[in-house]
Amino acid sequence: MANSLHTRTETVLRRLVRRDATSQVRKVLAKSRPEDVAAALEHMTRSERQRLFPMLGDRETAAEVMVNLSEGALRDVLASVGSGLIVELLERMEPDDATDVIEALPEELRAAVLSDLRGEDTEELSVLMSWPSDTAGGIMSTSFFSMPEASTCGQAIEQIQSKGEDFDSLFYVYVLDGQGRLVGVVSLRQLLTNPPNTPLVSVMTREVITVGPKQDQEEVARYVARYDLLAIPVVDEHQRQLGIVTVDDVVDVIREEAVEDMMLLVGINDDAAHGKGIFALVKDRAGWLLATIGGGVLSSELIGSFEQTLMAVAVLAGFIPVIMGMGGNVGLQSATITVRGIATGHVQLGGALAYIWRETRVGVVMGLLFAVVLGGYGLVRYLDQPLIGVSVGISVCLAIIVASLFGTTVPVVLSLIGVDPALATGPFVTTASDITGIIIYLGVATVLLQI
Amino acid sequence: MANSLHTRTETVLRRLVRRDATSQVRKVLAKSRPEDVAAALEHMTRSERQRLFPMLGDRETAAEVMVNLSEGALRDVLASVGSGLIVELLERMEPDDATDVIEALPEELRAAVLSDLRGEDTEELSVLMSWPSDTAGGIMSTSFFSMPEASTCGQAIEQIQSKGEDFDSLFYVYVLDGQGRLVGVVSLRQLLTNPPNTPLVSVMTREVITVGPKQDQEEVARYVARYDLLAIPVVDEHQRQLGIVTVDDVVDVIREEAVEDMMLLVGINDDAAHGKGIFALVKDRAGWLLATIGGGVLSSELIGSFEQTLMAVAVLAGFIPVIMGMGGNVGLQSATITVRGIATGHVQLGGALAYIWRETRVGVVMGLLFAVVLGGYGLVRYLDQPLIGVSVGISVCLAIIVASLFGTTVPVVLSLIGVDPALATGPFVTTASDITGIIIYLGVATVLLQI
Repeated sequence: MANSLHTRTETVLRRLVRRDATSQVRKVLAKSRPEDVAAALEHMTRSERQRLFPMLGDRETAAEVMVNLSEGALRDVLASVGSGLIVELLERMEPDDATDVIEALPEELRAAVLSDLRGEDTEELSVLMSWPSDTAGGIMSTSFFSMPEASTCGQAIEQIQSKGEDFDSLFYVYVLDGQGRLVGVVSLRQLLTNPPNTPLVSVMTREVITVGPKQDQEEVARYVARYDLLAIPVVDEHQRQLGIVTVDDVVDVIREEAVEDMMLLVGINDDAAHGKGIFALVKDRAGWLLATIGGGVLSSELIGSFEQTLMAVAVLAGFIPVIMGMGGNVGLQSATITVRGIATGHVQLGGALAYIWRETRVGVVMGLLFAVVLGGYGLVRYLDQPLIGVSVGISVCLAIIVASLFGTTVPVVLSLIGVDPALATGPFVTTASDITGIIIYLGVATVLLQI
Repeated sequence: MANSLHTRTETVLRRLVRRDATSQVRKVLAKSRPEDVAAALEHMTRSERQRLFPMLGDRETAAEVMVNLSEGALRDVLASVGSGLIVELLERMEPDDATDVIEALPEELRAAVLSDLRGEDTEELSVLMSWPSDTAGGIMSTSFFSMPEASTCGQAIEQIQSKGEDFDSLFYVYVLDGQGRLVGVVSLRQLLTNPPNTPLVSVMTREVITVGPKQDQEEVARYVARYDLLAIPVVDEHQRQLGIVTVDDVVDVIREEAVEDMMLLVGINDDAAHGKGIFALVKDRAGWLLATIGGGVLSSELIGSFEQTLMAVAVLAGFIPVIMGMGGNVGLQSATITVRGIATGHVQLGGALAYIWRETRVGVVMGLLFAVVLGGYGLVRYLDQPLIGVSVGISVCLAIIVASLFGTTVPVVLSLIGVDPALATGPFVTTASDITGIIIYLGVATVLLQI
């Protein structure tokens, strides 16, 4: 059965490549699915990747493997093969896959490769490459199966029988009018279950869900997911069909975007961590940590400015970390919910005020709850100085409310001004929550304890 | 164009329901796609949901809307309709969708509904319900199109023409032997592009990628994504086909699981935040915060136990938050990468030691880097007491290394003992990193400054 086979392929290939067992590697490659070879490459180091890829004898398979690689692995592999081979492989790919490879090429190689490609390919490629890679236009396939309005089901079937092999993804028949405008869609099943002489126009769905070429890929993915589509047509402003985005590309988009958001929230710039060097990994993660250091130095100065308060009541210092921690964690929770909500469309910028208001009420309830818990502990622990417990209770409550306000407002504002909310939210919200937490706590304590 | 239509439907429906404009609501509903009605319900409060749903006149549409609801919205809607209507709607659903609805029913209603369902339905439902809802068996559809081994392409087409309407998802023809064992698969396109008298066995793909009914839905999703499948067959241990999992269900699984992991990492138990009450939302998020309080109280005691050190050199207190913060953030980053790595299969438990070793080296590099940055700042800021800077530098380095060790090891260990690594990682790793950070820092300072 194939299930267990695929992980086996990965493990076996890695072991053999490490042992430099070339002839055995070739044997395994000959029996492996390209997707599994690609997965094996993902788990390898740069030099292992560059040794394994050239052992793929068959061009067709090599192209198929390349198409399944992540950006990091792709770059490594491309660096090890000549431009002649790259051109040969590109000619075996679907245009939308080919553009991804071309975009991963180093600048100097790209021009050489593009000029070596045959005429008809380049035209299609340059159309695709004119759209940003994270839009419908950037991920669409320009090879789709269409029929003129006047055709019958039988004629469509005949066309598929003679030309069907040319289409990588044949899920629907798109019905176009004389101007190339999309007027309807017919499923393969509808073709088969209607008599051959049925006109397409009498069975087609007229209310076709479409996207424009500039639409963000996340939005495209949302349509495909919501309406359970296998492919969604991309049309221009005159409703002329430019291409289709297929569900397998949408699956990739959904996986990438969710992980990307998650990583960005904890300040990691690139998910393609596997197969990278140590220093590249540190670089991906250092941004948030530098912000933490910056915020931390500011906090240490702030705490220092309350030196008198702390000298007078030394135990106050003990509660600084927990108040900061509560603020930071509440802020991160609110930010995570809000960033996901914006990404999935649950939080709409039009209804942002209502959303912020609701989250603020959640913050108030949590603030009161934890004020009782932590303030109560402070009271009992330092019975002789009840104002310590009171200060702690008031501060943790305010810190939580402020943090949930930050966590909801920051992503909404970022999104309104056109910045990816996942990008700046994590570091900004936690640092801001930390600092306001300290000011609130030491300020409240100084006033209450009259120091 | 449909693009803008769908958000319009949502907004319009919400406004009309709030205004109680019943006749207008009915008009909008009559022209809306069920998926858009479902999306509108997602954004509503419980009482709005319960007013809107019964206005769906047509049973077919109501069933279709119900199938597209999230669990929270589904429960609200179910609470407002009688068991008679529920049975009618269930009879209009695919078995795999029906089981989801039945599982969302309150216990007392479930028995009544199950006993009212007609015989043939219940048999199929009870098979599906015997598998856990997050396995291949739990999400599969038992209606798939198959042909006996001896058939030709033409015979398969004839079967589709006469019975195709019965199958909700017809992407492939599964070829079964006399014992119901899956021996191959043929795509619809292959059927059409081969002469009618071609035997299926001569065109079918024999190496079919299959899953077992107990396989985790995340793993199923990974197969479908990797091999770009439209549906994956579910087979028992004798290779007999039980059902198929279709790509649209896989899209839902991928979306849910990624979000679930992300939420769990910041200690949020349930993503279905939209449409919940304030107190339910607080409950979802309180767990991590209680852990933070617990860790915080412990930290405050620890800091208190170093009172002498802090009294002697008060400015030491100022660095506690930043050292804790660095540890906490590094721990959360490592944990996020590891949890995602385990979920996507990039981190395999067999290679866990190599992975932990690599991440530890990343931790060492980051530790040294930030030791120089923060220790350097401490040296310059308190030039007269250089040992403060040295203590800060050493401590931040150690705290970062320990935190990245926690962040990688905890999820791996949880996963090894069969606990979902996303579940306990966030609170555990941040709390543990905080506490060890304090001990390291105040310990190092006490020793170095000889207090």
